[in-house]
Amino acid sequence: MASSLISRQFALSLQKNLRLSAPGCRYVSKAAPKTQVEFDYDGPSMKTSVPGPRSEELTKQLGHIQNVGAINFFCNYEESRGNYLVDVDGNRMLDIYTQISSIPIGYNHPDLLKLMSNPNNLSTFVNRPALGILPPENFPEKLTESLVSVAPSGMTRVQTMACGSCSNENAYKAMFIWYRNKERGHNTPSEEDLSSCIINQSPGCPELSILSFMGGFHGRTMGCLATTHSKAIHKLDVPSFDWPIAPFPRLEYPLEEFTRENAHEEARCLEEVEDLIVKWRQKGKPVAGVVIEPIQAEGGDNHASSDFFRGLRDVARKHGSAFHVDEVQTGGGTTGKMWAHEHWGMEDPADIVSFSKKLLTGGYYHKDEFQADEPYRIFNTWMGDPSKNLILSEVLNVIRRENLLEEVTRSGKALMNGLFELQAQYPGMLSRARGVGTFCAIDIRDDETRNRILITARDKGILLGGCGDRSIRFRPALVFKEYHVHLFLNIFNDVLAQLK
Amino acid sequence: MASSLISRQFALSLQKNLRLSAPGCRYVSKAAPKTQVEFDYDGPSMKTSVPGPRSEELTKQLGHIQNVGAINFFCNYEESRGNYLVDVDGNRMLDIYTQISSIPIGYNHPDLLKLMSNPNNLSTFVNRPALGILPPENFPEKLTESLVSVAPSGMTRVQTMACGSCSNENAYKAMFIWYRNKERGHNTPSEEDLSSCIINQSPGCPELSILSFMGGFHGRTMGCLATTHSKAIHKLDVPSFDWPIAPFPRLEYPLEEFTRENAHEEARCLEEVEDLIVKWRQKGKPVAGVVIEPIQAEGGDNHASSDFFRGLRDVARKHGSAFHVDEVQTGGGTTGKMWAHEHWGMEDPADIVSFSKKLLTGGYYHKDEFQADEPYRIFNTWMGDPSKNLILSEVLNVIRRENLLEEVTRSGKALMNGLFELQAQYPGMLSRARGVGTFCAIDIRDDETRNRILITARDKGILLGGCGDRSIRFRPALVFKEYHVHLFLNIFNDVLAQLK
Repeated sequence: MASSLISRQFALSLQKNLRLSAPGCRYVSKAAPKTQVEFDYDGPSMKTSVPGPRSEELTKQLGHIQNVGAINFFCNYEESRGNYLVDVDGNRMLDIYTQISSIPIGYNHPDLLKLMSNPNNLSTFVNRPALGILPPENFPEKLTESLVSVAPSGMTRVQTMACGSCSNENAYKAMFIWYRNKERGHNTPSEEDLSSCIINQSPGCPELSILSFMGGFHGRTMGCLATTHSKAIHKLDVPSFDWPIAPFPRLEYPLEEFTRENAHEEARCLEEVEDLIVKWRQKGKPVAGVVIEPIQAEGGDNHASSDFFRGLRDVARKHGSAFHVDEVQTGGGTTGKMWAHEHWGMEDPADIVSFSKKLLTGGYYHKDEFQADEPYRIFNTWMGDPSKNLILSEVLNVIRRENLLEEVTRSGKALMNGLFELQAQYPGMLSRARGVGTFCAIDIRDDETRNRILITARDKGILLGGCGDRSIRFRPALVFKEYHVHLFLNIFNDVLAQLK
Repeated sequence: MASSLISRQFALSLQKNLRLSAPGCRYVSKAAPKTQVEFDYDGPSMKTSVPGPRSEELTKQLGHIQNVGAINFFCNYEESRGNYLVDVDGNRMLDIYTQISSIPIGYNHPDLLKLMSNPNNLSTFVNRPALGILPPENFPEKLTESLVSVAPSGMTRVQTMACGSCSNENAYKAMFIWYRNKERGHNTPSEEDLSSCIINQSPGCPELSILSFMGGFHGRTMGCLATTHSKAIHKLDVPSFDWPIAPFPRLEYPLEEFTRENAHEEARCLEEVEDLIVKWRQKGKPVAGVVIEPIQAEGGDNHASSDFFRGLRDVARKHGSAFHVDEVQTGGGTTGKMWAHEHWGMEDPADIVSFSKKLLTGGYYHKDEFQADEPYRIFNTWMGDPSKNLILSEVLNVIRRENLLEEVTRSGKALMNGLFELQAQYPGMLSRARGVGTFCAIDIRDDETRNRILITARDKGILLGGCGDRSIRFRPALVFKEYHVHLFLNIFNDVLAQLK
């Protein structure tokens, strides 16, 4: 640990562009100018191993109430700042996982604290309305300032929900309702529809399906789970639906060396999608909608080309299936654009776009025709939470004011360059560096090494997350600047040197 | 409207116990002492018809973004106090629906505003953690102070979730996992289990079922929806599971006149439950769990006796099915006890109890054996919201400090007495007055009259909700005192007199 601290100090003192990368020499990234994140700390600071004694004690306490098998450590959120998460043992870590990618502009952003201390906003936090029937006066305004102001192309309508799973569940329902309304020729439902649905039978509860992709993750409630195929532990023992599952392209890296192979792989997947749609229609379970992540996150940061997504959009349209882009993890600016699908450059990218995490509230955008024809079809008690819209509205102001999407693009380039260099330096250890903006990942030679890297990095003050079988995913907040990239790369290099 | 105002003034000026109920004379309820709710208003005050012009304008604005078919009106939550909801046109209504039963201690309770203005709490609102991996330091303490302090008998463990549907979805998953672990003899899952579940197939995704009741409501995500059978509009066009649905007892009122018939009806339903469990086992879709509300709320405030629930608990146990009591609407004190199932007087009432609404956070309590054997099986990004636990903790303090459960019992008796009297006075109009605590309902002669009553009452400053085909449900906050009961009864009497 001492050596890594020295290396870090050294890196910080280096002039811009100075680079030491001679063979055999320790990789030291160029030092970027000091962060503009004023409410940030200077760097990691580790006092104990992690989890430290206080975390261990609290984990034991919580163990009397809940399963604590997934607890990493307990946090001191009051002391956390910007890109740094502070734990209850006084350890300060550069956070590149950000609560499973759900902290948009870092911890305790001063503008959010200011918002919270405005007495005019208190009522929003203590009086949670049933938004679908009795919204607050400022609801249309706050929606317009927040979610509507960043609506994807072609979509002017948005429905909020409390979390990512509820967002996708309701988006699926919207697609089923839309599909059946088409089938009925927009006539009113029959008596048989109404009486059969109450007892879970068709035609009222029709045999419709959603096509999803192997490796996809769309949540853990039972409708969502039927479209999630990333890890067995998510799905084991839960009844599911017989819905079609298509292969997601498995690209070979580096992309520029495998252009032909990858195009072929994507064409194969699209063909398979079309075959499955036809097959499920023949089975009497037509595909009402196709759901896909722009980058499969939980499943291992699997990318596909814009051509693939454009092709998929066309296949869905051709067969009368809705096209749902799940941006729960990719949305909110982390790819350098507000929505990852913007990178496809399409005017009509989707029928439905769902979100959560960095957007602080769940929900989904949709084209006009996906609004349910009657009230109470897409409905629940809370329908989201206006206190989250309030905070989101300020988060979006900060993103605009501080040009954070440009910053993400800049930091993302620096991060990818660093990963490429490290990959060249540790070819047996690292492969498949990939990313858009700071939404980046790299593969480690095996699961065990990956997990050792995660723990060793944490001990050196860098918090990272895994995904897929053997990938590390980078999910910093939007205030992760070039400065932080280089800080990270230096420590990461130490970790790799130690474990190679 | 003028006459009702006079009558209200008159009622308020009456001495306690003064009663005018001679035939033909207007019913005027006794005036209770002035409320102890200091932050309350004196009574309703109506300025415009509802929705007023400002609400209409905002509804039009919101209509560009969302379906507004269910919007009643827009609210001024800042000006709302205690039992009174104020709308954007300055109308002040006595709220006996409380955001679909989700406001525990009235609007803008001073203790909650005080909590919010404490700067030490700000961080909880701006830094939402991924609770399952990185909880805040005070998480075990806040859980202990809040949810654990009111845990149902036999349950020491609780899992928070963001909303009611997610709570039930995850409770169902916990029951499925528990059931399959029993079937496997608690051995590790087979390779076949793991590989088949990824593609939605058995044995990994087994053909298990949840038994639910006709008229029940358990949420609107796809797992929940397969157990919801209250209204067609909730279920139409959404694919479902072939799970067994038992009849819920349809009691005849007044209960004391139909003792034998009702006991027979409950025995018939229990028998049917047992038959269905056997039948679904034979179909290869064993019943992993039975889910029921202590009072079917959305489905029409349908009650059953404690004997019925004790019998049902036994049937579930006998057949090795888990027993899940859904207290999303009944929980939180509104029946005069924290949980409606406490009225059954059982030491081992359930395996799982789910909650949301008045508890401000969703979640479920469970017996030890229902804790998933591995982490990440019951998991999602947020796993609830500590800012809601913080507010809940103070809500429970207020309930204790102000003896609100006793108050609810007292107000509930007054409300039931009033409903019985009105029912006697308007026999062609009202029937089946029923309730526990202030969780009360009454049937109206038909759907159309019910809806006219709801609207007329609203115009006179009383906000009520419907349920079932032709019931009105009363869902006041826990600060609804005898004073408010009488205020309500007088206005309700005016409404009935006007519409009879």
